[in-house]
Amino acid sequence: MNKTITILQKKIHTDLKKIYKSGPKSLVETFNYVVSGKGKRIRPLLTLLTSKSLFGDYKKSYNAAIAVEILHNFTLVHDDIMDNDSLRHGKKTVHEKWDISTAILIGDAMLAKSINILSESNYSNNLLKSFNSALLAVCEGQALDKEFETKKDITEKDYFKMIEKKTSHLIAMPIEIGALAYDYPSKDAKKLFDFGLFIGKAFQIQDDFLEIMSSPKIMKKSLDSDILLGKQTYPIILCNKKNTNFVRDLINNKKNTKTIITEIRKFITENKIDIKIKDVIDNLYQEANNCIQTIDFESNELLNFVNLIKHRNK
Amino acid sequence: MNKTITILQKKIHTDLKKIYKSGPKSLVETFNYVVSGKGKRIRPLLTLLTSKSLFGDYKKSYNAAIAVEILHNFTLVHDDIMDNDSLRHGKKTVHEKWDISTAILIGDAMLAKSINILSESNYSNNLLKSFNSALLAVCEGQALDKEFETKKDITEKDYFKMIEKKTSHLIAMPIEIGALAYDYPSKDAKKLFDFGLFIGKAFQIQDDFLEIMSSPKIMKKSLDSDILLGKQTYPIILCNKKNTNFVRDLINNKKNTKTIITEIRKFITENKIDIKIKDVIDNLYQEANNCIQTIDFESNELLNFVNLIKHRNK
Repeated sequence: MNKTITILQKKIHTDLKKIYKSGPKSLVETFNYVVSGKGKRIRPLLTLLTSKSLFGDYKKSYNAAIAVEILHNFTLVHDDIMDNDSLRHGKKTVHEKWDISTAILIGDAMLAKSINILSESNYSNNLLKSFNSALLAVCEGQALDKEFETKKDITEKDYFKMIEKKTSHLIAMPIEIGALAYDYPSKDAKKLFDFGLFIGKAFQIQDDFLEIMSSPKIMKKSLDSDILLGKQTYPIILCNKKNTNFVRDLINNKKNTKTIITEIRKFITENKIDIKIKDVIDNLYQEANNCIQTIDFESNELLNFVNLIKHRNK
Repeated sequence: MNKTITILQKKIHTDLKKIYKSGPKSLVETFNYVVSGKGKRIRPLLTLLTSKSLFGDYKKSYNAAIAVEILHNFTLVHDDIMDNDSLRHGKKTVHEKWDISTAILIGDAMLAKSINILSESNYSNNLLKSFNSALLAVCEGQALDKEFETKKDITEKDYFKMIEKKTSHLIAMPIEIGALAYDYPSKDAKKLFDFGLFIGKAFQIQDDFLEIMSSPKIMKKSLDSDILLGKQTYPIILCNKKNTNFVRDLINNKKNTKTIITEIRKFITENKIDIKIKDVIDNLYQEANNCIQTIDFESNELLNFVNLIKHRNK
């Protein structure tokens, strides 16, 4: 991790704790619990590094970057309720530590805070449009993800549509607003947005892949709930494509989750699904780069950071 | 109910059903279920009638009014989960008809839709600030309301602080944006906002009072859950002020809710709490009117509507 990124991460960590100091005790306490989590701050970093790469500076986009991180945390808190997850970054999730009502409400308040930060910072309508439509896309992506849990025969196309909404918009929008905060031309901002959509898809597929191939210790998250819930991740879809209902059959045979995971991993390697996934990821990064051929960057901070994301192992 | 209001209500009902037609099935279906509820559309009417009274027209504020109604419905869906309410306008609540995850997600999507409508309509930053800060206030009001459920000795002052956030902001903001959509001077818009804060408090106290004094049939909502949850409504606070723990003792004595309600009603009448409440309401309407002494209305639609609200019996 290079020095600029470490410094920015620290600054974001620190500033997030200054956002919500006075208000109802139950909200202030929970808000600060959530933003104290050890997130990687990828999304605000994307905003700031886009600004820095294009304009050599990130002052104008800083508040927007903070708003993006709060928005992202809102989605995590609500998704954790829906997905029944009990841990997040090694800490208890809000609904687990408090209760569902508290988690619903702090999510709502985080979303409210994030859009208040934007309007108080007097950003352009273009920036607000980008932010708001990403929010709606994320909700729709989560809805599709939940719908898929009880559906058979989810195709790769369905999956790509879902992750484009659920994950990619929260990667593409942060990049786009890093440009829009500086009144960058909409047409070029759109190219950066499209770049982000591809990066986001690659990011989600990597996540799905690491999730199933890494030990739980490295990912700091339990895989059990996702598999048992019937989550349609990319490796699972490709397994089922090779052998219909492969995963469902494993679950129905009531093997324990450790055995199920071992068998899925074996199947992935034997059928070269891992190689196919790596190819898909490489292609997505290639397509991402095609989007920004005409963009004139002053420096490489954004592209270096994206490269770090590409080569992460957790 | 006069003709203008009936026509506007119908138009709002109809247009709300046009908002969300394509998207994930689970969201589109639930969204349309919620907006098909027989709400009175008080908040968007406040926006439209403010515009009409000031400028003889409401074209510019129409989208904002729709956004306000969707925002209001988002709060209802999430509050119903937190308050464990099973009925709303005589229909099953979302979490009751589907499940909690669906209710969380449709609430989020409604909020997303409402702010998308605003940014797509290119409203001024002043209008967005008003909308966004009301949203945060509503979350904080709901947090206080939940905190009060497990606290003893909630004072009238605490109660007024809570309802100012929870209820009044969603009355004051709709009025304010009915003016701001027409680039009305901020200073005068603020007077209309303050007017709305007083109206909102009167409205909530009336609601609390009607809730306990009317038969459930008239209010179409069961009172049981509120009382048993320990909700701190104005009549309950005044009862406890006269006789500490009056209500808690009734509940602890495990009488059935019908008996509890009958005893509370008797206590209210015997101790002239009903007269005190009516005085408080009258004073609030008086204070509201003091805020708008210098406002130059073209016509009386807004004030007539507020008068209708004042004299409602459900």
